[in-house]
Formats: sequence, C-alpha cells, structure tokens
Amino acid sequence: MEPMNRPTDHRGLEVLTSEECDRLLREAPVGRVAFLHSGEPHILPVNYRYVEGSIVIRTAVGSKMDAAEMESRFAFEIDDWDPATRTGWSILADGVATVVTGEEEIARLEESGLDPWIEGTAGDLWIRIILDDVTGRRIG
Amino acid sequence: MEPMNRPTDHRGLEVLTSEECDRLLREAPVGRVAFLHSGEPHILPVNYRYVEGSIVIRTAVGSKMDAAEMESRFAFEIDDWDPATRTGWSILADGVATVVTGEEEIARLEESGLDPWIEGTAGDLWIRIILDDVTGRRIG
Repeated sequence: MEPMNRPTDHRGLEVLTSEECDRLLREAPVGRVAFLHSGEPHILPVNYRYVEGSIVIRTAVGSKMDAAEMESRFAFEIDDWDPATRTGWSILADGVATVVTGEEEIARLEESGLDPWIEGTAGDLWIRIILDDVTGRRIG
Repeated sequence: MEPMNRPTDHRGLEVLTSEECDRLLREAPVGRVAFLHSGEPHILPVNYRYVEGSIVIRTAVGSKMDAAEMESRFAFEIDDWDPATRTGWSILADGVATVVTGEEEIARLEESGLDPWIEGTAGDLWIRIILDDVTGRRIG
C-alpha cells in the first residue's frame, strides 16, 4: 500500500519534504519551545506565527524572555498524533532567539493578529526564533 | 458560567489540582521531553507511561539515552488544545532522568505494554524521569 517511495530516516520513519514542513508550520496553531533557564531545560507551549523562516511568539516578562534576551538557542516542536491508528507527524526545529526591538517590525507583528491565548494574557514583547534547522517525520 | 472558584495563577490561568494532573498524565498517549545535548536544548515527542510518579520511556541508543546516562534533568510536557474555542490545558513537569538497569524492573516494564510507536523502532533501553515538580493549567 505504498503509493510511492518516500525517503525514510535510519529508524524507518518517513522524512517530510521542506514544503510539507513549511505548510505544517504555517497551519499548526500551537507549538512548544524548549530553552535553558538557570541551566536547566524548560518546555512551554506557545501559540505562534511562522513568518519568513522564523517562529514569532508574543510574550510577557518571564523565563522565555530572559532566555531570548541572552540570544539563547531555542528548540521548537509541533506534532499531531492519532493513538488509535498509531499515526502522526512531528517537526523539530532549532534556532537562536532574539527579542524584536524595531518599532516598524513590532507594528507589523501586532497587525498579524497573533493573540497569545495560550499564555492567558497578551504580552507586549515579541521573540523571534530564526530557524536554522527544520526536520519533519511521519509515522504510519 | 463559573461553577466554582478554582485557583488561578498570576496570569489568571486555572491551576489544575494534583489529582487532575495525575489523571491527565495517566491518560495522555504522547508527551514531549526536553533535555540538553551538546549544551543545547532539544525537544522530542515520546510515548510514555506514568508509573508511580515517574515518566517511563522506552528508547534506543541516541541523544535521549546520552542525556539519561549523565543523569541530566529533563523537562516533560503534555497538552491538548482546541484552537476554535481557544481552550485547552497543559502539564509541565521536571525531574532527573536515570537509565533503568535492574533486570526485574526491566522485565516488569516490558510487560507494561509500552510500545514506542512514535520513535518508530522498539528500543531495549528504558529511561525513568522521577518527577519532582508537576504543574498543570487550563485555559477557557
């Protein structure tokens, strides 16, 4: 039942094309960021936008912001699974986070309609993770 | 439409009780771990079991295993969201990872039926993350 030969990784998982990764990154409403805080790994769920190869997050003062101010590396992940059929996909990405400071850029981002409902309160601060590595895999 | 006053955090998000966190940790099929690898944060989706306050993961040789062998701290996350209604919940947890080495314990874990479908291939190695901090929040 294989319609075509798709590339697989060393574990036999189907590797997504960069076009598929781009589409899923544009469509998924929620992702997770991992970063270092006080020397330890942390994960937080975030809603985000995928803009020109970057993940953009609206936030308030907090641990994510502390890590972005230090221009730390962030990991980013989105996924979707169906346990009943044991199928699903994930995208893993990495990049350096920076705080967006340009007034024009902030104004443009504010018009993008990214409202951080997951974090509960709207923040005035913007973080951009410029992705330098994006990989996607599908199971089943 | 608030049936009762539930505790909230500083952002106004409802805080889940430890009983709710326990139930969701037992029920969710997929979570994500974050850990340090070569000094950088990484995220991986995993299927897992929640056993006696620990997250148990079956794995093969790889970056997660490297981090567990060093008894590193891991972060663990599960969540579920409905973007249409902007509702959902997340649980964040932390703990030290260890490699399970006891033969009896491995035999017991192998009987637990945890089959690592997300990682694609069944590994023979087991990692336990003994959680020392679990928090849950709900939006909407």
